Amino acid sequence: MAAGNMKNHGKSSSDLSSKANRAFARILASAKPHNEKMGELLSTALKNNIPMHKLESYIDPESAAAARRHFIERTAGTDLSAIGSSNLDYSLISGKNAENVIGYTQMPLGIAGPILIKGEYAKGEFYVPMATTEGALIASVNRGMKAITSSGGVKTIVIKNAMTRAPVFEFDSIAEVSDFLAWVRENHEAVKAAAEATTSHGKLIDVMPFVMGANVWLRFSFDTGDAMGMNMVTIASEAACEYIESNFKKARLVSISGNMCSDKKNSSINLLFGRGKSVIAEAILEEETTREMLKATPEGIHNLNLKKNLLGSVRAGSNNLNGHAANMVAAVFAATGQDIAQVVESSSCFTITELKGRKLHISVTMPSIEVGTVGGGSGLPTQKEALSILGASGSGKTKGSNSLKLAEIIASTVLAGELNLLAAQFSRELGKAHSRLGRNKS
Amino acid sequence: MAAGNMKNHGKSSSDLSSKANRAFARILASAKPHNEKMGELLSTALKNNIPMHKLESYIDPESAAAARRHFIERTAGTDLSAIGSSNLDYSLISGKNAENVIGYTQMPLGIAGPILIKGEYAKGEFYVPMATTEGALIASVNRGMKAITSSGGVKTIVIKNAMTRAPVFEFDSIAEVSDFLAWVRENHEAVKAAAEATTSHGKLIDVMPFVMGANVWLRFSFDTGDAMGMNMVTIASEAACEYIESNFKKARLVSISGNMCSDKKNSSINLLFGRGKSVIAEAILEEETTREMLKATPEGIHNLNLKKNLLGSVRAGSNNLNGHAANMVAAVFAATGQDIAQVVESSSCFTITELKGRKLHISVTMPSIEVGTVGGGSGLPTQKEALSILGASGSGKTKGSNSLKLAEIIASTVLAGELNLLAAQFSRELGKAHSRLGRNKS
Amino acid sequence: MAAGNMKNHGKSSSDLSSKANRAFARILASAKPHNEKMGELLSTALKNNIPMHKLESYIDPESAAAARRHFIERTAGTDLSAIGSSNLDYSLISGKNAENVIGYTQMPLGIAGPILIKGEYAKGEFYVPMATTEGALIASVNRGMKAITSSGGVKTIVIKNAMTRAPVFEFDSIAEVSDFLAWVRENHEAVKAAAEATTSHGKLIDVMPFVMGANVWLRFSFDTGDAMGMNMVTIASEAACEYIESNFKKARLVSISGNMCSDKKNSSINLLFGRGKSVIAEAILEEETTREMLKATPEGIHNLNLKKNLLGSVRAGSNNLNGHAANMVAAVFAATGQDIAQVVESSSCFTITELKGRKLHISVTMPSIEVGTVGGGSGLPTQKEALSILGASGSGKTKGSNSLKLAEIIASTVLAGELNLLAAQFSRELGKAHSRLGRNKS
Amino acid sequence: MAAGNMKNHGKSSSDLSSKANRAFARILASAKPHNEKMGELLSTALKNNIPMHKLESYIDPESAAAARRHFIERTAGTDLSAIGSSNLDYSLISGKNAENVIGYTQMPLGIAGPILIKGEYAKGEFYVPMATTEGALIASVNRGMKAITSSGGVKTIVIKNAMTRAPVFEFDSIAEVSDFLAWVRENHEAVKAAAEATTSHGKLIDVMPFVMGANVWLRFSFDTGDAMGMNMVTIASEAACEYIESNFKKARLVSISGNMCSDKKNSSINLLFGRGKSVIAEAILEEETTREMLKATPEGIHNLNLKKNLLGSVRAGSNNLNGHAANMVAAVFAATGQDIAQVVESSSCFTITELKGRKLHISVTMPSIEVGTVGGGSGLPTQKEALSILGASGSGKTKGSNSLKLAEIIASTVLAGELNLLAAQFSRELGKAHSRLGRNKS
Repeated sequence: MAAGNMKNHGKSSSDLSSKANRAFARILASAKPHNEKMGELLSTALKNNIPMHKLESYIDPESAAAARRHFIERTAGTDLSAIGSSNLDYSLISGKNAENVIGYTQMPLGIAGPILIKGEYAKGEFYVPMATTEGALIASVNRGMKAITSSGGVKTIVIKNAMTRAPVFEFDSIAEVSDFLAWVRENHEAVKAAAEATTSHGKLIDVMPFVMGANVWLRFSFDTGDAMGMNMVTIASEAACEYIESNFKKARLVSISGNMCSDKKNSSINLLFGRGKSVIAEAILEEETTREMLKATPEGIHNLNLKKNLLGSVRAGSNNLNGHAANMVAAVFAATGQDIAQVVESSSCFTITELKGRKLHISVTMPSIEVGTVGGGSGLPTQKEALSILGASGSGKTKGSNSLKLAEIIASTVLAGELNLLAAQFSRELGKAHSRLGRNKS
Repeated sequence: MAAGNMKNHGKSSSDLSSKANRAFARILASAKPHNEKMGELLSTALKNNIPMHKLESYIDPESAAAARRHFIERTAGTDLSAIGSSNLDYSLISGKNAENVIGYTQMPLGIAGPILIKGEYAKGEFYVPMATTEGALIASVNRGMKAITSSGGVKTIVIKNAMTRAPVFEFDSIAEVSDFLAWVRENHEAVKAAAEATTSHGKLIDVMPFVMGANVWLRFSFDTGDAMGMNMVTIASEAACEYIESNFKKARLVSISGNMCSDKKNSSINLLFGRGKSVIAEAILEEETTREMLKATPEGIHNLNLKKNLLGSVRAGSNNLNGHAANMVAAVFAATGQDIAQVVESSSCFTITELKGRKLHISVTMPSIEVGTVGGGSGLPTQKEALSILGASGSGKTKGSNSLKLAEIIASTVLAGELNLLAAQFSRELGKAHSRLGRNKS
Repeated sequence: MAAGNMKNHGKSSSDLSSKANRAFARILASAKPHNEKMGELLSTALKNNIPMHKLESYIDPESAAAARRHFIERTAGTDLSAIGSSNLDYSLISGKNAENVIGYTQMPLGIAGPILIKGEYAKGEFYVPMATTEGALIASVNRGMKAITSSGGVKTIVIKNAMTRAPVFEFDSIAEVSDFLAWVRENHEAVKAAAEATTSHGKLIDVMPFVMGANVWLRFSFDTGDAMGMNMVTIASEAACEYIESNFKKARLVSISGNMCSDKKNSSINLLFGRGKSVIAEAILEEETTREMLKATPEGIHNLNLKKNLLGSVRAGSNNLNGHAANMVAAVFAATGQDIAQVVESSSCFTITELKGRKLHISVTMPSIEVGTVGGGSGLPTQKEALSILGASGSGKTKGSNSLKLAEIIASTVLAGELNLLAAQFSRELGKAHSRLGRNKS
Repeated sequence: MAAGNMKNHGKSSSDLSSKANRAFARILASAKPHNEKMGELLSTALKNNIPMHKLESYIDPESAAAARRHFIERTAGTDLSAIGSSNLDYSLISGKNAENVIGYTQMPLGIAGPILIKGEYAKGEFYVPMATTEGALIASVNRGMKAITSSGGVKTIVIKNAMTRAPVFEFDSIAEVSDFLAWVRENHEAVKAAAEATTSHGKLIDVMPFVMGANVWLRFSFDTGDAMGMNMVTIASEAACEYIESNFKKARLVSISGNMCSDKKNSSINLLFGRGKSVIAEAILEEETTREMLKATPEGIHNLNLKKNLLGSVRAGSNNLNGHAANMVAAVFAATGQDIAQVVESSSCFTITELKGRKLHISVTMPSIEVGTVGGGSGLPTQKEALSILGASGSGKTKGSNSLKLAEIIASTVLAGELNLLAAQFSRELGKAHSRLGRNKS
């Protein structure tokens, strides 16, 4: 299910996002339509001073998509020809991204925004590409972004940045475990050297040992630059393990991945210590903004967050305090070529609200955003273009800066989606939105 | 990260899957290649009696994909023209699947299989479509499927089938809570009638109440036929809540979704009671099969499963006992138009091994597979074709039979991926596989 | 650590609990002191109109204890001679409560209260016996009780009452599991009859099945009257399992207790469905009361509860939203002869606060209070007397009414302790209280 | 419920623990019975060469307790007069251990053992004092101890030793959080100095920061010597917080205990990082021993542990992989004056079995044993004597050595209880044992 509601977002958009809409109109005016009819339609649309998401009321869907694509290309200074066409170059994926290939799955790609971000790496206004098949999702995120941007934007901070792998070793008896733990502490530099010999980018940051009976897990943490880095750290950890087994003979490696990493499973260890990028995003909204743009009161949103995201989650036996973070994470992951199986833990999110005076403070704390802007699917044609919309394709200017920028943008997008969902549920628009925009009328 | 290793899977394939390969060769011989050169290449390939996944050694990647597509079309009796081309029909998604559309994201689509399934709904051999950007994933699942199919296939059972939504109500004091709980029990039929009036397919199965202070959650469970059903149950639950608020005046609805549903978050309640389809898949392998096809001993796989998937998961603070279930779930979800944000809880999986005599028993218990074959993204061109490969597009012959078939196929695919990962980690092939097939050599 | 602070509790007690203190003085005046000197001291104390807990400022500790004991005997209409002396009757425990006995452990026993309870079973004012070695605990609970009683008392409700046992069965394959689940549904009455044949009090309420691979857990729930009931349900479950194994031959019982009971371990299943008695207690405090008696503002308490008991617990990976419920549970359990190992899950508690107008609503939701007033340690001399202080020794007038009364009193005591801890931490009195009253000055 | 079975332990005890029984007989022969009749009975008992736990078959319960007490006094070289009498000295607890005292609760105290321990601090054979009201518990632990001792004893190791307290601070915005985290790192020495100025024994080992929105928890870890240390670390943390608030003005302390400590609640953070003493105990049993002394096969015990303690716990949503660790922890805690509310997390335990050849390896990993041998209830008369039986009363020879010795003994006792429970459930003796020895026949 996507979430939130768009009932009123058209009405107020000309006022609230006028800057974005004026830019849209200006750029659109310079577009070269594919054919005469589209030109006429576009002209009509522009005359009516319509906002970006309302184009379909005036021109056909394909032309509307082309118009928006043109706008984004100009705004982001990039080329989106793959997204707009279908340059299926099979040689790009052969032996790299998939096997037994029979073709391509096509997933609708839209944009939400702009959202103003004041982060450590993401600075400025962003249009965020989202690939989804769930109606209403992009629209609802869009409304949250408008409210946030008009309130001064999102503040983001990065708390941590490390990719992990945790091999598990077994011993004959716990008698050997104490020795091993001491050995690991004393030989940290040698183990680090063995690991880092396998990679030019990866740096071993930390090794945390955990014991259960006569088994020891070593949770290795690496800085992996702009790569998501799982394969990098797997290979480096294998080298570290070879060194360990060669030098501490009583240690037998059971598995290079002992599930304390933890990859693609929810886990307390990732919630506590993070995996990938740990990012917090925060917005502060005036009462008027929540009332006018979100049709909700700060008190109402706060109460709903308490009962739903805090109490309801705990009552369900979950430590994941959010409404639908996974929706935003999945859509940006799919659009930008991330590993969509990692939506599982990358969507871990604590959504917190507080009332301070007449203002609503809302934040999302996301400990495990696992993203990269090099490697994996990030280099495929449409995915690479989506990253380019964010100015985050390939390696960043400083080590890891592009992937951290992407992580900040994702947290900001999640914040917008969370805010809008709370408001929509407060004003009881959820099912109605899906009846109108959504997919599933059965 | 995808998982497992393909090092040896070519060698033995001619023996082990000869039936599948002979079918492949036979059908391929009838293919009409796009041009003369491809015809020559294909002819060469066929002469060398190559297995499906080795085509790229003889012909170019695009032709290889076309050849495999042709084979699947013939085998499954379906048409895969959208998957093979790029019929971007924007009118299909407008107002339904996405907003602010600028184009499409293209995700590589491959097939794994065949896998022999002996389920309640899935019966026979299946080629499973998987959309992924992670190299080695399809290949590794493929190896697991071969081992399982040559051992007699997968047995699957469906334990439960229900989609849930859990509104939360608040009261002035707990003094009203006891009355409300009694009222809900006594007025079950009226609430059920209100809910079911909104839908022709959905049937209210059960209402479970949960209390925390002066707040009450009602977890509604519905049978939703072949639709995944979240929007259906949201709308039905809204009607139920309106009835409740109108007739039990002291109850105030806080949110239509009080997070005990739980959607897109891991939770104990879903692990315990399931959401969507609860499916178990089991395979029993002879020692020779694990040794020859998987290069591992039953004892080695069992010990690794104990240390990694059981002890390691618990030590990490996770109740998710599996290696990489999310990989398989995400790839089939993306291919078949499911909501990829629901990979979060749909990938919940307990992977268990046991040694009985010289045989390895392995099973996956998946409580929350949330899938549909109508609605959502399941009707989009490439997604619909992918479902058609499984014979599971649209409504099934009996209520819900297509979505249950899909769930059984997903559990079977997960089982294959889990088995292969355990074997690959036992034989220490993980990083090596990614170095060769994978994406991320940094 | 015990919790909370008593800095100001003397000052205001003469005003706030004057009714209790006047009763204390009146009854004390009739006491027959053990000797002349104590008589003089008591006379001095009474002249000074001192509250119960200040006696030690005027008379020696032993005499103070005797005086309070006399008061409680008269108030509760009971005899506390065992608590006051040392009638060690070894024949009472031989073969019943312990083996290899070498004597008795003596644990200090104090009383907190009175607390006004408006429950379904506990109605009126209660002095609560608490056995503890942790200084400041009783005093802090006492302060919370005063504030609550002066605010109109505690409202309590019982949500559920059932003791559970969950045997686990194994099967050769999942193929047998579906049959077994159907068989269990169809043969419910026969299984119930087999179980109930072993007991005159226990009634089988419910059987919940859970599956994992080829293993099935059946969670049996029983009404056990005033007995805590674990042994009763173990014996009844054994009989049920014998019937099952005899009639469904493919089921092999692995263990009579498969850990889904769950006994003496925290678990989601107990949090969701309860074990023993599920009780909620609620108090509503005026702003003046919190300010004057607790030295805290409603806002301050609410904010602290949010940050500590909700966010802090979740951040720690706990679903137990409380400050120190275990302190109160352990002290009443030890005093009344409950199984102190069951403090583990009996202390499960969600402490919730809300601000409504100028009032502070505070509640504790306790799903798993496992207590009995017959059997176990409840019949030992000092423990039985402690139960008699509450009017809850032995079997109640209606089935289970004494054990439910005890559960409501425990929840109310927990509420008082939780409230006071929040107030004390708000006013930063924690460490100071322990420096003065506590044990550990190192 | 207590656990396990004693059906056969008498029969084999003369062979298996003959050393202990001979010592018992020798010392008993020197006892001075209270009166002539007891002298005669004792003489009869000695002639029959009876084991310690069978005394009640020959002499009355009080005399049996006196005889065993005499034996333990001589064996441990200590005086148990308080345990045997009832020297209720109220002045000892006044203002320290309890308030509003009205007397004492008396809890039966027995001994289990001897158990041979090969630990870092506990070395040799120990009789372990257990206070309980649950019949069959001591007997069942006793049987486990016999089997372990006859197999060469328990190996124990200490993984970690630290008591924690985690204050929580709030900030106006996340913008201040990054600065604060940096400040904490940079001012570690000053914070440490402020904390340590409050205590002569406590040493700050570590500070772990955790963030959620604009809130920061600092989890302080201290070495607290032989004190359990919670009050010590609370006072030290208060001083640290005062320093922090004075020097980082934007930080506002919300609570000195922000629930990431975590005290008296189960939590992932304690499972991962421990609190108090983290201890592992392991025993290796020959097949013959399990068959003859425990009436179970290694395979049977291993399978039962897998299905019950691993799968069953996880299926129940618990990360606590054990049968009844809380039983043993509670009994030794009550006997030795520990804080019984801390049984909650001190009973956290992972019980693991493995088959290696024909041997059964069994271990318990206990991350959070919170015990002290000075302060709290450890100095009360009967509690102090119980500690003296273990040679662990007061401060140890080296810092913390007595409390670590106690922790190793507790882990060993838990191991014995876990082993016996598995064996008893395998041989289906559970309910039967309670019918004969237990309390609850209703």
